[in-house]
Amino acid sequence: MTSRASLRARICAGRLAHIMAAHSPLSAILAEEAGFDGIWASGFELSALYGLPDASLVSMTRHLDMVRSMAEQSSLPIIADIDTGFGNAINVIYAIEQYERAGAAAVVIEDKAFPKVTSLLADGRQELIRTEEFAGKIRAAVATRADPDFLVIARTEALIAGLGEAEALKRARVYEEAGADMILIHSKQKVPDEVESFVRAWHGKVPIVIVPTSYPEMNESRIRALGKIAMVIYGNHAIRAAVTAMKDVFARIRADGGIHSIDPEIVPVEEIFRLQKMDAVKANENRFLW
Amino acid sequence: MTSRASLRARICAGRLAHIMAAHSPLSAILAEEAGFDGIWASGFELSALYGLPDASLVSMTRHLDMVRSMAEQSSLPIIADIDTGFGNAINVIYAIEQYERAGAAAVVIEDKAFPKVTSLLADGRQELIRTEEFAGKIRAAVATRADPDFLVIARTEALIAGLGEAEALKRARVYEEAGADMILIHSKQKVPDEVESFVRAWHGKVPIVIVPTSYPEMNESRIRALGKIAMVIYGNHAIRAAVTAMKDVFARIRADGGIHSIDPEIVPVEEIFRLQKMDAVKANENRFLW
Amino acid sequence: MTSRASLRARICAGRLAHIMAAHSPLSAILAEEAGFDGIWASGFELSALYGLPDASLVSMTRHLDMVRSMAEQSSLPIIADIDTGFGNAINVIYAIEQYERAGAAAVVIEDKAFPKVTSLLADGRQELIRTEEFAGKIRAAVATRADPDFLVIARTEALIAGLGEAEALKRARVYEEAGADMILIHSKQKVPDEVESFVRAWHGKVPIVIVPTSYPEMNESRIRALGKIAMVIYGNHAIRAAVTAMKDVFARIRADGGIHSIDPEIVPVEEIFRLQKMDAVKANENRFLW
Amino acid sequence: MTSRASLRARICAGRLAHIMAAHSPLSAILAEEAGFDGIWASGFELSALYGLPDASLVSMTRHLDMVRSMAEQSSLPIIADIDTGFGNAINVIYAIEQYERAGAAAVVIEDKAFPKVTSLLADGRQELIRTEEFAGKIRAAVATRADPDFLVIARTEALIAGLGEAEALKRARVYEEAGADMILIHSKQKVPDEVESFVRAWHGKVPIVIVPTSYPEMNESRIRALGKIAMVIYGNHAIRAAVTAMKDVFARIRADGGIHSIDPEIVPVEEIFRLQKMDAVKANENRFLW
Repeated sequence: MTSRASLRARICAGRLAHIMAAHSPLSAILAEEAGFDGIWASGFELSALYGLPDASLVSMTRHLDMVRSMAEQSSLPIIADIDTGFGNAINVIYAIEQYERAGAAAVVIEDKAFPKVTSLLADGRQELIRTEEFAGKIRAAVATRADPDFLVIARTEALIAGLGEAEALKRARVYEEAGADMILIHSKQKVPDEVESFVRAWHGKVPIVIVPTSYPEMNESRIRALGKIAMVIYGNHAIRAAVTAMKDVFARIRADGGIHSIDPEIVPVEEIFRLQKMDAVKANENRFLW
Repeated sequence: MTSRASLRARICAGRLAHIMAAHSPLSAILAEEAGFDGIWASGFELSALYGLPDASLVSMTRHLDMVRSMAEQSSLPIIADIDTGFGNAINVIYAIEQYERAGAAAVVIEDKAFPKVTSLLADGRQELIRTEEFAGKIRAAVATRADPDFLVIARTEALIAGLGEAEALKRARVYEEAGADMILIHSKQKVPDEVESFVRAWHGKVPIVIVPTSYPEMNESRIRALGKIAMVIYGNHAIRAAVTAMKDVFARIRADGGIHSIDPEIVPVEEIFRLQKMDAVKANENRFLW
Repeated sequence: MTSRASLRARICAGRLAHIMAAHSPLSAILAEEAGFDGIWASGFELSALYGLPDASLVSMTRHLDMVRSMAEQSSLPIIADIDTGFGNAINVIYAIEQYERAGAAAVVIEDKAFPKVTSLLADGRQELIRTEEFAGKIRAAVATRADPDFLVIARTEALIAGLGEAEALKRARVYEEAGADMILIHSKQKVPDEVESFVRAWHGKVPIVIVPTSYPEMNESRIRALGKIAMVIYGNHAIRAAVTAMKDVFARIRADGGIHSIDPEIVPVEEIFRLQKMDAVKANENRFLW
Repeated sequence: MTSRASLRARICAGRLAHIMAAHSPLSAILAEEAGFDGIWASGFELSALYGLPDASLVSMTRHLDMVRSMAEQSSLPIIADIDTGFGNAINVIYAIEQYERAGAAAVVIEDKAFPKVTSLLADGRQELIRTEEFAGKIRAAVATRADPDFLVIARTEALIAGLGEAEALKRARVYEEAGADMILIHSKQKVPDEVESFVRAWHGKVPIVIVPTSYPEMNESRIRALGKIAMVIYGNHAIRAAVTAMKDVFARIRADGGIHSIDPEIVPVEEIFRLQKMDAVKANENRFLW
């Protein structure tokens, strides 16, 4: 069974999929080893890796290259964060062709206007496109995919944009009708009330995806208790973990005047060799270098 | 003064330059904020980021793209690790043109045979090219650079290859004569004796670079005491720090069934916004979005 | 004098600059050898090279890579066709930083809505953004450039969109006020009347650029007679020439059952060697391969 | 049937495959429309497109991107010219994984030393690697491919290197034994005698590939008469045709002072629209832009 088929089967069976953000093949490998069910190829994390704001500056070419490189190194299904789809429905068609070829198992498309500003920004400009226009994008994505197991996930930013639950539900229903396989509901409230209320009020057939960055107390037991949610995405903890550690280690090296004291506190070089599969290189050298 | 000129001035003045490995513009930004004097655009770290062994698989195109992206985000001088120069002297010429345009301040070229195997591997195959052939690469690099402040650093792997100090010194002298601005001496012994002995025996005019990964007790006070060393490169601690943290955070999220307990232990999303310069986006939106 | 300074000097001196479209470093080299004054790094030609419609599908990453590769091979100033600027004013700021670093001498930004459809399509959808919004993009571009010789050219599609001369002139004046160095006026009428009328009615201080694809009889003597025009861009004749020849040669090979009869009719392999500078490789091999 | 399976079936059935060089998706589309049986993703043509000598300067990343882009636009099987395999057998393994994922149907690997110099150069340096070392590369390629229809073609440069027919035959036999699906025999003699003699003397089971650039009179009827040859590659006529036409058209525009006289002699803009599939964009706009 391909990673796409296994993800769809898991979703259909109602088993919660735990998805970890990654910004590199290396972080994807680590997420797989940690036991996650899929990779969130996060636009936010990739922007951050390049030191760029999450404002539609990282091109599809660059994001696609990262998705492709992750798919080469991990057998987990990859959920590609394609923001608004890089333009209108024509851009979405091209994106779906490209991401499917690159090995993604799913895409998340959001109903913000292009170019977007990251959803979590306290006072960011948040404009949505018309419901019908976004439904056209979803229909275009569904009509384009070659593999029926490839998931098209519609993300509504109605709550983020302050349009309220009724609008969010209305949009979600239209997107489901347009063919979306799942609805991602996003909120930047510091507590899960807003999202929980949406989930309780949702009576569509397709399951829900949440990204509990802002309301971390919404853990998996609480998610399961609520029901209807088939996927939880931990959206930026890989890059935040990496930054935390690099800041600390860099400061320590400067303060200590060397690496003598931090060396034993980080993984040894041999652990990096293992993650790079140096063993396979040595085996292949023995087998093929004559 | 450009970052190139400032690096050369520092080296000439005999002030030890502290160089931190980076595998992304983000890690370069963090190294700059931590107070390092330059960035090591490490082939090993970049290979690891892609989950690939450090065996000449990451192309010059990909490494160059990373160097260019770092130069856009950091004002520190970038020392580009170009391994063997991607082939022979013809490839070196092309590489120098490209790295100089990309904004690097220096390159390190090593006297291994292409394709290389990472130097730190316990029982890796380690073949060197002939001394004259490598001197040709150095002469080609020096003749190609447009900016005289661009540093060409010759790295000898003679100790790594088990050829002994006499051979290492002989090679270093030939490389200096060929125009190298600095000599990088590498060792994988677990103690600094081998490198310290080389440094004491070195009577060339150009200063020395070391990479104390294997012998971390060779800290900066010990380096200064020894003299002749103008640059210390911490070659892989950024990626090792990041891996350590991601492994830990990923395992915690799985074990805790959510992000509720790790969230306060990693930098907040707002710190990532700061590193991405989201403030500049908001200011520019106010100024130019009418 | 840099290629940027020489282009600006030529424009200021009122000497008509003849700019040839290119889709590759090779076509840029040929344009330089033919005596053109600059290269049009055409989005249309690059889209065509990839077999893609000119509808904002080729990413900035890919176009930028082509501009950079051209700048490495040609000393001519490169005028980069950046369409709408890849989004809003925030995207324009990023684009200007990137194109200037890549070695472009100028950019042309158009007042269409993103994503665009190619202007020459008979019945294509052609929407413009508000005048003030586009003026904001021009102000952002001008404020961002580091080299004052870098030209920001504003292209109005008002005639293409059927909004008439009065609107075209009004927009051109606002764009000049916003800091545009030149105004590109585009028309898809089969005769030059529309453009000639615009030029006669233009009383701004900055000169005009035209792209006479649709009205080829508007040749250089007619352009000079009209005055005010400082740049003529031949927008797609490189790719059309290449397609014409490849269609012909491919058909001939199939019909002839081999290359025996077409071989003498195309440039010999040695001419390609010359364009690739194989001589320099041989000289460098003699000099540096020991 | 995939393009790989159809190519293998054609070769096995002993039907001569006519393969046309391409340097872009556009030239691949034109080759398909002209009725060729496959695309030669030529390293020489791609180097020339970038204005670079064919001397292992264009990276695998760049070549792979071109192969991938061609595979998106053409249904023909793509034979990827991977030169020496970008290094040793370890690099070959990585290359096979990458080219197979990118959609290639076959690779050609040559027994020259890396970095290579183009074979057709009159007095170029031409060194071969040891027979056993190259056989190791072929074994590595065969062991790596996932799709058994993916062809591994071994190219011997023994005649180019002046080692004579006996050495060429000996190498070809070893390469066949190592698993090569076909043997490409290359010659730069101005007449086909050398190649014809090799073909007559060849008694292996696998068929032969030729590239008659230097001896164009060896046309398809002559090839068929000789037997044993299952593939003919026209290796650089696409780029030579394009250069011939661009030189001519560029000179004409300069001489004529405009495009008025060349315009009717090249394909119209509408032909480029057709090749870019603008019709599909219009249809999709009607269907999905609401």
